[in-house]
Amino acid sequence: MNQGLEWLDVPAAALDEAAGAAALARQQVLTKPRGSLGRLEELAVRLAAMQGTERPRAEKVAIVVFAGDHGVAAEGISAFPQSVTAEMIKNYARGGAGISVAARAIGAAMEIVDLGTAVDPGPLEGVVRYDLGPGTANFVEAPAMDEHQCARALAAGRHAAERARLAGADLFIGGEMGIGNTTVSAALASALLRLDPEQLAGPGTGLDPNGVAHKVAVLRRALAHHQGHLDDPRETLRRLGGFEIAALAGSYIACAQMGLPVLVDGFISSASALAAIRLHPGTRDWLILTHASAEPGHRRIVEALDGRPLLDFGMRLGEGSGAAVAVPMLRMACALHNQMATFAEAEVSPQK
Amino acid sequence: MNQGLEWLDVPAAALDEAAGAAALARQQVLTKPRGSLGRLEELAVRLAAMQGTERPRAEKVAIVVFAGDHGVAAEGISAFPQSVTAEMIKNYARGGAGISVAARAIGAAMEIVDLGTAVDPGPLEGVVRYDLGPGTANFVEAPAMDEHQCARALAAGRHAAERARLAGADLFIGGEMGIGNTTVSAALASALLRLDPEQLAGPGTGLDPNGVAHKVAVLRRALAHHQGHLDDPRETLRRLGGFEIAALAGSYIACAQMGLPVLVDGFISSASALAAIRLHPGTRDWLILTHASAEPGHRRIVEALDGRPLLDFGMRLGEGSGAAVAVPMLRMACALHNQMATFAEAEVSPQK
Repeated sequence: MNQGLEWLDVPAAALDEAAGAAALARQQVLTKPRGSLGRLEELAVRLAAMQGTERPRAEKVAIVVFAGDHGVAAEGISAFPQSVTAEMIKNYARGGAGISVAARAIGAAMEIVDLGTAVDPGPLEGVVRYDLGPGTANFVEAPAMDEHQCARALAAGRHAAERARLAGADLFIGGEMGIGNTTVSAALASALLRLDPEQLAGPGTGLDPNGVAHKVAVLRRALAHHQGHLDDPRETLRRLGGFEIAALAGSYIACAQMGLPVLVDGFISSASALAAIRLHPGTRDWLILTHASAEPGHRRIVEALDGRPLLDFGMRLGEGSGAAVAVPMLRMACALHNQMATFAEAEVSPQK
Repeated sequence: MNQGLEWLDVPAAALDEAAGAAALARQQVLTKPRGSLGRLEELAVRLAAMQGTERPRAEKVAIVVFAGDHGVAAEGISAFPQSVTAEMIKNYARGGAGISVAARAIGAAMEIVDLGTAVDPGPLEGVVRYDLGPGTANFVEAPAMDEHQCARALAAGRHAAERARLAGADLFIGGEMGIGNTTVSAALASALLRLDPEQLAGPGTGLDPNGVAHKVAVLRRALAHHQGHLDDPRETLRRLGGFEIAALAGSYIACAQMGLPVLVDGFISSASALAAIRLHPGTRDWLILTHASAEPGHRRIVEALDGRPLLDFGMRLGEGSGAAVAVPMLRMACALHNQMATFAEAEVSPQK
């Protein structure tokens, strides 16, 4: 099952520790008490090490929203009908969705990658189409993807990351849309973290407690069905993932290989990031967690990623929206880092 | 002691509950799961009620940095020499300080109000001068301000808020600078909340644990000295406050009276907000807490203000910097609220 997946063996780019150290030294002489910008200092220093420069930047942002449908939607695990995946693809293309508005607000380029949906949204401007199928198979009874589909989805993510790099992006955001994909993410994370689905399943777009209990039962059936085949992360992704989730994982890995910093969104993106790290551990260095999702299982994945999300706004929209909302914070971190006067420049007496 | 303080009796503007309800109704029909934008939804609805419109805005931001020196600096309670207050005023005027950079980054107008410093920074463009004295008296042995100084400082805040309103500001940010002002804020909050100074005193700009213990001892001496005179909030402000802290409190009250939403910064701003609310309870409705300061006592004041700061970045710079950093979040809340498509507009199937 290595068809076309040799690229996964390319190592991640190395962080530039010297640039990070130079940025850290600069923070110590800016006209403020040492450490008083808190996480904004950390962000600037981390971006400096990623970008190989004492003066990091967060201007050009590439947002790619990956969309796909999920066979497990047949189990009634979402508060929305499956047709919404295609309807939302149209909404992205027309600029009316949350991520569309957020992308405009931060001046980011946005692209939609339609990997395969139950209802065909038709050709749309700004949408790259793959047509891997009318959604994945229902993983309660079969692997979600065949090997070809999984490899193509991973490659679709890689190609999106490469387009972002070619366009000169400073930061990459992967978003997602797919009715049922909190269930898929919970399945994937349960398998990868060896946790009971109860720890990962939540209301998603709006299930009531009975709905969540049903979701847990569906997830347990899925894990039982695939038992014995979940030791290899790639096979786990193929059996329990989804088109847009594999594409996200592929995009994160490719970003790490190219040295393009990634802003990770919420629950689904974090589950995809977890899969990416299991497939390619070097990916971890290139991921910045942007927000703590209201989806309760997110906490478990964040712990596993050893991350500290920047924002805690109780968001649970997906689409990459939380990552986009965090972009002004990175820009502010860079502006303060690059533009503040030093004690010497401003003739201000330093700390005693 | 009512000299020129009759304006404090003007009631706060009323929130427009109908506009808030209209904004809340709009949030329910935007193309997203209900509630999925979390605090960004709350912010948009709250701003709508403050601004009396279903479509709130956060474009024009007025930042006023109030500066003044403190007699208690003689007790050795800061990691920086007192000359830094004047040096930083020059740094603000030249655009090199954290708040200067943050103001430029968000396109905000910024004004500095120099109320009285130990070292005269001289006349500077963009700086309004009051010259209330070369700093307050050392409150360990005397009231920090006489009645005239305290009234003028409150009025200076009011006038700054009025200038912001006249300039068409959508949001007001008050910042502060004054070596020793975490000590002053801790004194004020200890008296107003009837808490031991240990609960409020922290490292400020960078004290070590011995320095913090000394700060607590100084604060206890101050509270003992003024015992029996701390039941009236205005008298408490006069005895234990400072020029820039009284000015901040005055600006907050005036904003509430004019119906101009306020973004409250960190520890010192929150202590000033607490004083403002004790002087004028209606002020509370007009305050939005923007960030949780790394100064440990901030938590106590936030509890008393019954607020939930938006950001938790471990910042402790003051100057209004945390509030300025939060502005893009308010703008994003407004953009999403105003620009997202509804289910009907986008022809997306609504939640089951």
